[in-house]
Amino acid sequence: MTEQKTNQQWGGRFTEATDAFVERFTASVSFDRRLYNHDINGSLAHAKMLAKVGVLNAEELEQIESGLEQIRSDIQSGNFNWSVQLEDVHMNIESALTAKIGITGKKLHTGRSRNDQVATDIRLYLRDEIDLIAAELTRLQEGLIFVAEREADTIMPGFTHLQTAQPVTFGHHLLAWSEMLSRDYSRLLDCRKRVNQSPLGAAALAGTTYPIDRAYSAELLGFEAPTENSLDSVSDRDFAIEFSAFSALLMTHLSRFSEELVLWTSAQFNFIDLPDRFCTGSSIMPQKKNPDVPELVRGKSGRVTGHLISLLTLMKSQPLAYNKDNQEDKEPLFDTVDTIKDCLKAYADMIPAITAKKESMREAARRGFSTATDLADYLVRAGMPFRDAHEVVGKSVAYGIDTGKDLSDMTLEELQQFSDTIEQDVFEVLTLEGSVAARDHIGGTAPRQVRAAAQRAKQLLASR
Amino acid sequence: MTEQKTNQQWGGRFTEATDAFVERFTASVSFDRRLYNHDINGSLAHAKMLAKVGVLNAEELEQIESGLEQIRSDIQSGNFNWSVQLEDVHMNIESALTAKIGITGKKLHTGRSRNDQVATDIRLYLRDEIDLIAAELTRLQEGLIFVAEREADTIMPGFTHLQTAQPVTFGHHLLAWSEMLSRDYSRLLDCRKRVNQSPLGAAALAGTTYPIDRAYSAELLGFEAPTENSLDSVSDRDFAIEFSAFSALLMTHLSRFSEELVLWTSAQFNFIDLPDRFCTGSSIMPQKKNPDVPELVRGKSGRVTGHLISLLTLMKSQPLAYNKDNQEDKEPLFDTVDTIKDCLKAYADMIPAITAKKESMREAARRGFSTATDLADYLVRAGMPFRDAHEVVGKSVAYGIDTGKDLSDMTLEELQQFSDTIEQDVFEVLTLEGSVAARDHIGGTAPRQVRAAAQRAKQLLASR
Amino acid sequence: MTEQKTNQQWGGRFTEATDAFVERFTASVSFDRRLYNHDINGSLAHAKMLAKVGVLNAEELEQIESGLEQIRSDIQSGNFNWSVQLEDVHMNIESALTAKIGITGKKLHTGRSRNDQVATDIRLYLRDEIDLIAAELTRLQEGLIFVAEREADTIMPGFTHLQTAQPVTFGHHLLAWSEMLSRDYSRLLDCRKRVNQSPLGAAALAGTTYPIDRAYSAELLGFEAPTENSLDSVSDRDFAIEFSAFSALLMTHLSRFSEELVLWTSAQFNFIDLPDRFCTGSSIMPQKKNPDVPELVRGKSGRVTGHLISLLTLMKSQPLAYNKDNQEDKEPLFDTVDTIKDCLKAYADMIPAITAKKESMREAARRGFSTATDLADYLVRAGMPFRDAHEVVGKSVAYGIDTGKDLSDMTLEELQQFSDTIEQDVFEVLTLEGSVAARDHIGGTAPRQVRAAAQRAKQLLASR
Amino acid sequence: MTEQKTNQQWGGRFTEATDAFVERFTASVSFDRRLYNHDINGSLAHAKMLAKVGVLNAEELEQIESGLEQIRSDIQSGNFNWSVQLEDVHMNIESALTAKIGITGKKLHTGRSRNDQVATDIRLYLRDEIDLIAAELTRLQEGLIFVAEREADTIMPGFTHLQTAQPVTFGHHLLAWSEMLSRDYSRLLDCRKRVNQSPLGAAALAGTTYPIDRAYSAELLGFEAPTENSLDSVSDRDFAIEFSAFSALLMTHLSRFSEELVLWTSAQFNFIDLPDRFCTGSSIMPQKKNPDVPELVRGKSGRVTGHLISLLTLMKSQPLAYNKDNQEDKEPLFDTVDTIKDCLKAYADMIPAITAKKESMREAARRGFSTATDLADYLVRAGMPFRDAHEVVGKSVAYGIDTGKDLSDMTLEELQQFSDTIEQDVFEVLTLEGSVAARDHIGGTAPRQVRAAAQRAKQLLASR
Repeated sequence: MTEQKTNQQWGGRFTEATDAFVERFTASVSFDRRLYNHDINGSLAHAKMLAKVGVLNAEELEQIESGLEQIRSDIQSGNFNWSVQLEDVHMNIESALTAKIGITGKKLHTGRSRNDQVATDIRLYLRDEIDLIAAELTRLQEGLIFVAEREADTIMPGFTHLQTAQPVTFGHHLLAWSEMLSRDYSRLLDCRKRVNQSPLGAAALAGTTYPIDRAYSAELLGFEAPTENSLDSVSDRDFAIEFSAFSALLMTHLSRFSEELVLWTSAQFNFIDLPDRFCTGSSIMPQKKNPDVPELVRGKSGRVTGHLISLLTLMKSQPLAYNKDNQEDKEPLFDTVDTIKDCLKAYADMIPAITAKKESMREAARRGFSTATDLADYLVRAGMPFRDAHEVVGKSVAYGIDTGKDLSDMTLEELQQFSDTIEQDVFEVLTLEGSVAARDHIGGTAPRQVRAAAQRAKQLLASR
Repeated sequence: MTEQKTNQQWGGRFTEATDAFVERFTASVSFDRRLYNHDINGSLAHAKMLAKVGVLNAEELEQIESGLEQIRSDIQSGNFNWSVQLEDVHMNIESALTAKIGITGKKLHTGRSRNDQVATDIRLYLRDEIDLIAAELTRLQEGLIFVAEREADTIMPGFTHLQTAQPVTFGHHLLAWSEMLSRDYSRLLDCRKRVNQSPLGAAALAGTTYPIDRAYSAELLGFEAPTENSLDSVSDRDFAIEFSAFSALLMTHLSRFSEELVLWTSAQFNFIDLPDRFCTGSSIMPQKKNPDVPELVRGKSGRVTGHLISLLTLMKSQPLAYNKDNQEDKEPLFDTVDTIKDCLKAYADMIPAITAKKESMREAARRGFSTATDLADYLVRAGMPFRDAHEVVGKSVAYGIDTGKDLSDMTLEELQQFSDTIEQDVFEVLTLEGSVAARDHIGGTAPRQVRAAAQRAKQLLASR
Repeated sequence: MTEQKTNQQWGGRFTEATDAFVERFTASVSFDRRLYNHDINGSLAHAKMLAKVGVLNAEELEQIESGLEQIRSDIQSGNFNWSVQLEDVHMNIESALTAKIGITGKKLHTGRSRNDQVATDIRLYLRDEIDLIAAELTRLQEGLIFVAEREADTIMPGFTHLQTAQPVTFGHHLLAWSEMLSRDYSRLLDCRKRVNQSPLGAAALAGTTYPIDRAYSAELLGFEAPTENSLDSVSDRDFAIEFSAFSALLMTHLSRFSEELVLWTSAQFNFIDLPDRFCTGSSIMPQKKNPDVPELVRGKSGRVTGHLISLLTLMKSQPLAYNKDNQEDKEPLFDTVDTIKDCLKAYADMIPAITAKKESMREAARRGFSTATDLADYLVRAGMPFRDAHEVVGKSVAYGIDTGKDLSDMTLEELQQFSDTIEQDVFEVLTLEGSVAARDHIGGTAPRQVRAAAQRAKQLLASR
Repeated sequence: MTEQKTNQQWGGRFTEATDAFVERFTASVSFDRRLYNHDINGSLAHAKMLAKVGVLNAEELEQIESGLEQIRSDIQSGNFNWSVQLEDVHMNIESALTAKIGITGKKLHTGRSRNDQVATDIRLYLRDEIDLIAAELTRLQEGLIFVAEREADTIMPGFTHLQTAQPVTFGHHLLAWSEMLSRDYSRLLDCRKRVNQSPLGAAALAGTTYPIDRAYSAELLGFEAPTENSLDSVSDRDFAIEFSAFSALLMTHLSRFSEELVLWTSAQFNFIDLPDRFCTGSSIMPQKKNPDVPELVRGKSGRVTGHLISLLTLMKSQPLAYNKDNQEDKEPLFDTVDTIKDCLKAYADMIPAITAKKESMREAARRGFSTATDLADYLVRAGMPFRDAHEVVGKSVAYGIDTGKDLSDMTLEELQQFSDTIEQDVFEVLTLEGSVAARDHIGGTAPRQVRAAAQRAKQLLASR
């Protein structure tokens, strides 16, 4: 190509060759070639549509189909020579097609433009990835529910402000994570609806003068419908932003899980054990077993939130229709997809393998006056206004701190210092089992409720 | 309250008064008091539920209801004394209730906590605001469609890369904006589903030992269902993040409209006129008529994107369940709601009042070789491969630039220099009207299609 | 003002009154009036300059000075009527001046525009706030160094990956925080240089035809120099963005401190005590003592990072020179200033009052094989390659985990199972005191080094 | 390595091999290997220091130096086998060293950890890149000043609100961009000071028990000084965040330039021409010449702002000291460096080659009442208060809009309708040349001032 001074696809009016650095700087083939499969699928559908409306004849269609499948096979076997001079995945494939089948290859681009072509490719790509991500989300939730049922009776401290608040069950805690993921799943499906629309046929920005059948190509590609407006179709990247927002929130959830796993594997909490294969050691401190996977996932939330901002910033203030800026949509999107798939896989593999250190959890729940609310509720049931009961308990706790005794360690006499409403039966409500079992309503931490919630969650997953 | 050294609600175990600065620093009443109506509604439903399950008797319920309604009325008439020492809207109202009705007021807090109470209040608030926003979105779309139908035949240049690309109709361009808003509307309704779940009854984090009926209070408040997990219920702010992500994307759209309005009102484009009331003047340059409203809306996209980041950053890495950090959710959310309501109102008022400068638009479309694609398509229909046609047109355009002639200004002989396929009938496709009318498929810019699209859009709005 | 249909300052060419909603929507006086002092100071300097170059005579100057001081006094005493119709702080003050002193008031605006006026005001405001923030940063560092010296010998576990790594001293840990703040301080002073430039005289965008003396007004206002380019001067908001970036990093540091304080006050860590006045209680759990101030500061990091994004998004893609978008710079900047001042004050008050629970810290350091590296170093000093020593220690630790013994709890025979290089003197290096004292180089955790570092830090603060 | 079940560097206490996926997920060698040069340089300095303090003997030092240089050479010639199992660049190189020189290779890691090693490497890397970026910034400014001097007399419209405001010179406008870059340069140098500190010797987190000389290794590596606190040294990523904030602001500037270049190359503005080599064409519209480079640079501002958010989010709430999250610092930093280097190069190449379309600029300035301020100033000099003059001009402009006449097109009689203060000499101030020349003070747009400003800017660059 050394003699050819200008790009072969659009060089007609140009009098100066593209600067070599500029060529590399503006080319996208280094990252958009991962779309090759979707680009070929899009071209096959476009060709079929062109044949249906009479722009291609049967023989031309057959040549194009066969040529594209050969190119797909060449790419998959590593026998395709990607060229930066051909800018992007679309030009590379089209150029190879023309090299293979001659002049008919040049007809494939009739009635479309790279603007609608790339929009189609990304949507096809993202739809496929969404389906993989949805499956991995479900697998992670299955793991959570599995462990939650196993640990429906395991008592641990529930925290607010990272202070021991009330005893909860470990199963209950795990189901909180599953709830977050259920919302993520629901958002993902909502996003998929808006991804699955066909921009093909919008051409450069205004539609085309060929008698195309957009509904037919949309149907061939499994899209729900053609998009409604050509200017919008080539410039819209909402679907990428919405997907990134979904991803940022998902990663915020995984970051919160991770924070808890890191805390729980510390010597101070000592609530769980992670299998060695999700941890690494230290080059200098041989005793370390670092929770690398949770830490890394926590860190990767930054990356995904950053990509969301990249995309929002990218689109801010762009006039219609397509601008070159839009080329910058791909790398953040691809990295977001790769990151969340990896993080979900790591979690889906890891969660079923975590071990609860039940004694340690229980001991932590026993300390820290975690049944103080139960004492207050006891007093209220005996007729004391809630706010007054709160004060009685507050004073009991202050006494406990001074004397180093938990509420259940005090004698009846000691407790009666603070209110003579307290009787012998108070010790029933001050046990951990009594405390959790008493929170027996939808969403509560009672083991009975945890098992019922796990059942409902399993049914929900089964219905997906 | 000067003699009382510690907070009356939770001061039991404390031995030192809150620092005055700290009191102000940690209080939220300065901003959360705007939730008073929803807080009272939530309390009314909670009280009714407590009566249903026997925790309150009929007389107590009546006292509480009457007390709360008096407080609502006091607040609305400006006769309520908000106190920073009482921290937040919840404590202020509860304290006032106890002052009004005595010991019964203290019973209202039975079986709930501020953690589920505030989560309930924000959801109720946001649900109401979503409904207002949805209505305003629809109003703006109605305006767009109205102008789009009026301008279905008005020809303007369509741009890519801000270079004249192909002629489009102004109506077609306006419908592109309406498409963006349709997606926003759809995202908003999806978000509303996830907002409209009742956390009431999750209590502090683990549920409560009282025999509450969460489904009943959810129903009273118009929620779709109670949430499934108490730990999640008090710590979840996903709904605020999802709403902020919706808002950031909506503002990105309004920012793009604004960019176009600013361009179009410039002397250089001169495509439209904005009514004076949406503009302001200059203190130093008397001739200026500045498109302030679009500029300000464009600027406000930064604010809303910033709030999204605030909320994502806020939640990142928080362990369960409620942490004080969460108090920081309100100001970004409130400001996001206020901002998008104002911006939507400004646009819904302004759009129907914009005037198209048709001659100026048409003249811009006529220049700039905007029908070059039509020439290429003409050649293809005459049998030339697309890529070859592209090159012929490229050379014609280069000639036009050198000689200062648009394609339709050239003689047949001049055009035939570049291809002898060109015949006299070429001049039919080189007119603006011919060009737009030829893009006659779903989503295309042909006036016929624009009118059909406007009809479909109106039906969609009517069905909301 | 009911009869006057259009704004009095720029209404000449307008034929329609501003819409009432639009007036409120575009006005900034609700938030920019906090700049009144700096606006008056800027006007006083501008007036003096105008007198120096002969645009105002002595009497006019005197009238203006006296009028502005009266207005300042009116505002401070609450006797100033702010008007939304007058849009902003500048117009409100100028209008009041003209009302007070008549036609001379109208001359004040000679040779300037609101564009350079507001840029001047914000820089004056921010310069003042930077000085307050610098002082508060220093106060916080003083507190840290004070506690660090006191706790130079207090041993605690040092963590990596939140796993016990090696013993460190609490004083050493506190000085790490002071180092972060030293960098923040340094960044703040660098930012101040770029804030402290005078845009006054840039006028609307191009400078003015009056014979102004920009160096003189810059000097009067304490600016380092006039800015170099008028187009840049009125459109530049870099100083606000740089300050926000400083603030976001500062808040990231405070968020990291906060995370540690929250961990350390948990029952699981139990390393420190915070005074009651920086904590609050729970409305439902009487035993709670929640570290509200650290949590809230941690949460507020989201707000400040959000404002940084607001400002970056705001300026993205704006063409020169001033656009109305820029009005959106103020609220994020003001809120950033207020937030970091509050957070620094809270920390500067709180840090000197934290109490170390030395026994608990020591016990945590003793567990967890924290002197494993010391064993490895012992072996290396005895001639074993580091990587081999690492493996010996790894096996010793695995044995310790199985048998429940720390390294210092094992007998010599037990240790010798893993290497016969180990002798009796190994027990000297396995003590906590031996371990920390051995890290005796600049930056190391040895108490001697901590004291020296605290001395250097104090000298640095003294030299500010 | 198939038989070896656990990682050779830290596997001692582990009983289970790392999961293959987890190994890939947690490894960093795929991206951190670009640090190999700095890693080797850091190791060479560390080895020299170990020899100086007697930990290594001369022969060992020589072996290590020679081995590391061989490895450098192997890497540069592509003969190095990077292994994911060895996790990162550090382990890969150390492992290769031991393979080459045997047991002595294992001694190199004495007295350091990967935690201080990687912190050292990144700082060395970033310092080098900063110097390249500083040079490219200067080259771009040189281009701007070169064109600014050439175009010191070229008149164009100055815009506020994208409305024609006052005439300015093109040279003046270009110097506004140079001012932004001067601030960027200044921020970059400030950042470099804080980058150029040596963390080497902080070891894992607490320092080391070996008698290291941190000042010596710092000096060997050209660092200004060793860092002051080991806990901070291994966990600090402020320098990366500060550099990213610098980069985000730089890209905001380049995005603003880009916006203007895109506007100016549109048919509507038609102010400049970009050489073909910075543009590309369209696959469907042969007449297009798209300003790809400016558009892409504008788009890339999103990427860099996103990375800043990634890093801020990453560090938010991390407790001390090193956590695995920190590994996520590299990719955003590397991509930021690559992006801004490319964008600066593109701009430094492109700016000197832009051509001003002087007639078109002048014609645009002539229209739009751009000398209206000059008329107002004329009236003020004749004794009219500024605000009254503003109103006279406003009415003249309204008349001009109605009659299609610019101010300079009106007769004296027409002008005198609005004020009888206007005399024949008014036409002198209404010319474009008169208008710009009159703004003759520092920072003003007068050609004399533009030339002087360019001179000062050149001196500043020369002094760098």
